[in-house]
Amino acid sequence: MAKIEKLTDSERAALVDLLPAWSFARTNAGQNDAIERKFVFKDFSEAFAFMARVALLAEKHDHHPEWTNVYNRVAITLSTHDAGGLSVRDIQLAEAIDMIA
Amino acid sequence: MAKIEKLTDSERAALVDLLPAWSFARTNAGQNDAIERKFVFKDFSEAFAFMARVALLAEKHDHHPEWTNVYNRVAITLSTHDAGGLSVRDIQLAEAIDMIA
Repeated sequence: MAKIEKLTDSERAALVDLLPAWSFARTNAGQNDAIERKFVFKDFSEAFAFMARVALLAEKHDHHPEWTNVYNRVAITLSTHDAGGLSVRDIQLAEAIDMIA
Repeated sequence: MAKIEKLTDSERAALVDLLPAWSFARTNAGQNDAIERKFVFKDFSEAFAFMARVALLAEKHDHHPEWTNVYNRVAITLSTHDAGGLSVRDIQLAEAIDMIA
């Protein structure tokens, strides 16, 4: 499999328009090139239903988030370990998550 | 509903024997009186299957974890917001989680 390339600076700059609900962040593991979106739901049941849908997307994309849930809140952080930072795989999964959010 | 009481010092000391797989921790929100257990699975599919079972337990107990997942790893932190620290509700949920782990 070809190495996954990190986003270029111009691709990274385009994310502001492409994924307006996401912001640049770092992962808990300290990866300083990631994007994050926070979601708030009515309750835990709604939050976990959303997480189940994201889990299916993640498996489908073979790309998995770092995410945290506390009751009705879900925070999703995306980065590509194999690329050492943001890649097109993060954009694709973020777009898919935005579709169901 | 009666106020949920924090564990006493002797109850807290008993946790070492009662919940040997758990360790004292703090929540991301900074609550410095919590317990944590980390789980490692074969892959994301197994990790999320476990999370689905924990989600059902959480709803059944009406007590919800702060938890983080990255691929095959799940970290669960328990504390009782209404008690301002550890309560019997954390012990009960931790025991239920241990049963399915």
